[in-house]
Amino acid sequence: MAKIILNKLNYFHNLDTINQKLNNTDKIAVVLKDNAYGHGLMQIAKLANEYGIKKAVVRTIKEAEEISHLFDYILVLAETINQSCSHTFHIAINSLQDINNICKNTNVHLKIDTGMHRNGITIEELEEAIYRISKANLNLTGVFTHYRSSDVLSSEFFWQQTNFNNIKNEVKTICEKLSLSLPHFHSLNSSGIFRCEKVDDDFVRIGIACYGYCDNKFPLYEPKLKPVASLVATRLSTTHLKKGNRIGYGGEFEASQDMASSTYDIGYGDGFLRLTPNHGQYITPKGFTLLGKVSMDSLSLDTNEEEVVIFDDVNHLAQLHRTITYEILTSLSSQIKRVIE
Amino acid sequence: MAKIILNKLNYFHNLDTINQKLNNTDKIAVVLKDNAYGHGLMQIAKLANEYGIKKAVVRTIKEAEEISHLFDYILVLAETINQSCSHTFHIAINSLQDINNICKNTNVHLKIDTGMHRNGITIEELEEAIYRISKANLNLTGVFTHYRSSDVLSSEFFWQQTNFNNIKNEVKTICEKLSLSLPHFHSLNSSGIFRCEKVDDDFVRIGIACYGYCDNKFPLYEPKLKPVASLVATRLSTTHLKKGNRIGYGGEFEASQDMASSTYDIGYGDGFLRLTPNHGQYITPKGFTLLGKVSMDSLSLDTNEEEVVIFDDVNHLAQLHRTITYEILTSLSSQIKRVIE
Repeated sequence: MAKIILNKLNYFHNLDTINQKLNNTDKIAVVLKDNAYGHGLMQIAKLANEYGIKKAVVRTIKEAEEISHLFDYILVLAETINQSCSHTFHIAINSLQDINNICKNTNVHLKIDTGMHRNGITIEELEEAIYRISKANLNLTGVFTHYRSSDVLSSEFFWQQTNFNNIKNEVKTICEKLSLSLPHFHSLNSSGIFRCEKVDDDFVRIGIACYGYCDNKFPLYEPKLKPVASLVATRLSTTHLKKGNRIGYGGEFEASQDMASSTYDIGYGDGFLRLTPNHGQYITPKGFTLLGKVSMDSLSLDTNEEEVVIFDDVNHLAQLHRTITYEILTSLSSQIKRVIE
Repeated sequence: MAKIILNKLNYFHNLDTINQKLNNTDKIAVVLKDNAYGHGLMQIAKLANEYGIKKAVVRTIKEAEEISHLFDYILVLAETINQSCSHTFHIAINSLQDINNICKNTNVHLKIDTGMHRNGITIEELEEAIYRISKANLNLTGVFTHYRSSDVLSSEFFWQQTNFNNIKNEVKTICEKLSLSLPHFHSLNSSGIFRCEKVDDDFVRIGIACYGYCDNKFPLYEPKLKPVASLVATRLSTTHLKKGNRIGYGGEFEASQDMASSTYDIGYGDGFLRLTPNHGQYITPKGFTLLGKVSMDSLSLDTNEEEVVIFDDVNHLAQLHRTITYEILTSLSSQIKRVIE
């Protein structure tokens, strides 16, 4: 059976690397949404807890409930709840309308649109939002934003940071006026923290860097991270090809000599995105070549080993698919077994 | 919350279309592997049962167990079992070695490699395989193959068919010699049956055509099928953009005039493969344009409707991603709610 191996030492190395910027694990919130970027929600939550992380970020209430025993503080990014929930949950407010959909005494984090123009209230709506949150008896425990270009070498990151700094000041003034406690501020994601000399926010939200990747390619800021997930497939059968034999759908690979080829139990139905010869050649870490197209449930390699590591780093796959490492990882089916080693 | 709507009338229409070729629902085995090609294993299994289908094809024992109450006959394609299992299960043998891994009295289907060169024994191994199956006290209930090019307009399909016809004759001779009952023969998939004047096999395995797609593009054989799945997303928030405002990661979409834009709760983390402006423009069935890149948990459209149908046919998405409809469908996360309408 195919499996995903999670390298605990690499995960801890990545958290160490992040912590060197912060010197305080309480300032790290690990992002565990989308099945911990495909790594396995429970497995990564347990590892983060073992490391001493106290804060997590998820997308849904269901995810928060699954890991509630492992963290003191869980931010839910994209689901409101109109019944009472754990006092350790903090629900993101993405629009003024959301304020009406949350039951009183719930902790909320107000999202501000500082330039991404997706979720969040506008800067102009800030005072109204905080007033309405207070009136609805919600606890404003956080104010946050998200940067659209922290991995792009341009001034956009600094422009959004300036916007957020202005918001912080305004929030402080409004909270004083309404006699509210000051909320936590957070804005930085993985690329963001490595671009900052000093982190002023109360905590940071770290997703992809925990898993060993950082798509910014600025030599000055590039952290030394180690990929956490490897995908291992098991042999289904071996065929001895004659020169000229062709493999798989459309017969796109042709053997240039007599050779052995084996099928392995990973396909695009498992979320290993479909590669074809049009994407370019894919070679596994041990040097085996992918032959022909990836099928729904299997792929062929020029070996007959019982188990093969299909990847231990997804950067090259992301390049072949012209996408980002995030997509290669989050696509991995939750049905594949995860093993911590 | 986002959901996948399954159109029951369309599903039944597709089964009707297939049945017109066969005039016998007992000759149809519906392929339900990989979460019923992303549609939802249980939902599609129930619909197939309601239509009167008796045979199903899955990948794993676990899938077979989940739907065992709904079918008389379930073929498991890619997992052997060395303990006794339901007498309604039939386990595929993909290599001579598999014969040793199956407990006696189990029903088995022997897979023959007629030219795909992936799983299956060779034509030369046929007699040995049947002899060993008989000696291991397994019940040989089926012999089958898979065509690598039934959706390609070439002679390859007919070459593999000829190979399989020769195998049928040889199996008959061997079974007579060993006093074994004649197994069921099957070879055709969705594209295959629409290319045949007459179906000689005992049953056919229909996957993608049940779901409304058939990637062969031969006008003569192209069946009139109707897509079963639609993806519907819910609005998270609305932003009023000024001319010149940019949206999302990298700010790749720029508003050419003041306009409303909303985020919806579908992203590549849900298995809606990541589209960027580099793929070309994507427009929803109702005419809304995707703005900027698809994020992990959301995407932006130029509307403020509460619910939007993201697709009701994946052909255009498959073209934009330079892939096949199968991948677009099977990628859809099992976490999204499925609703039959």
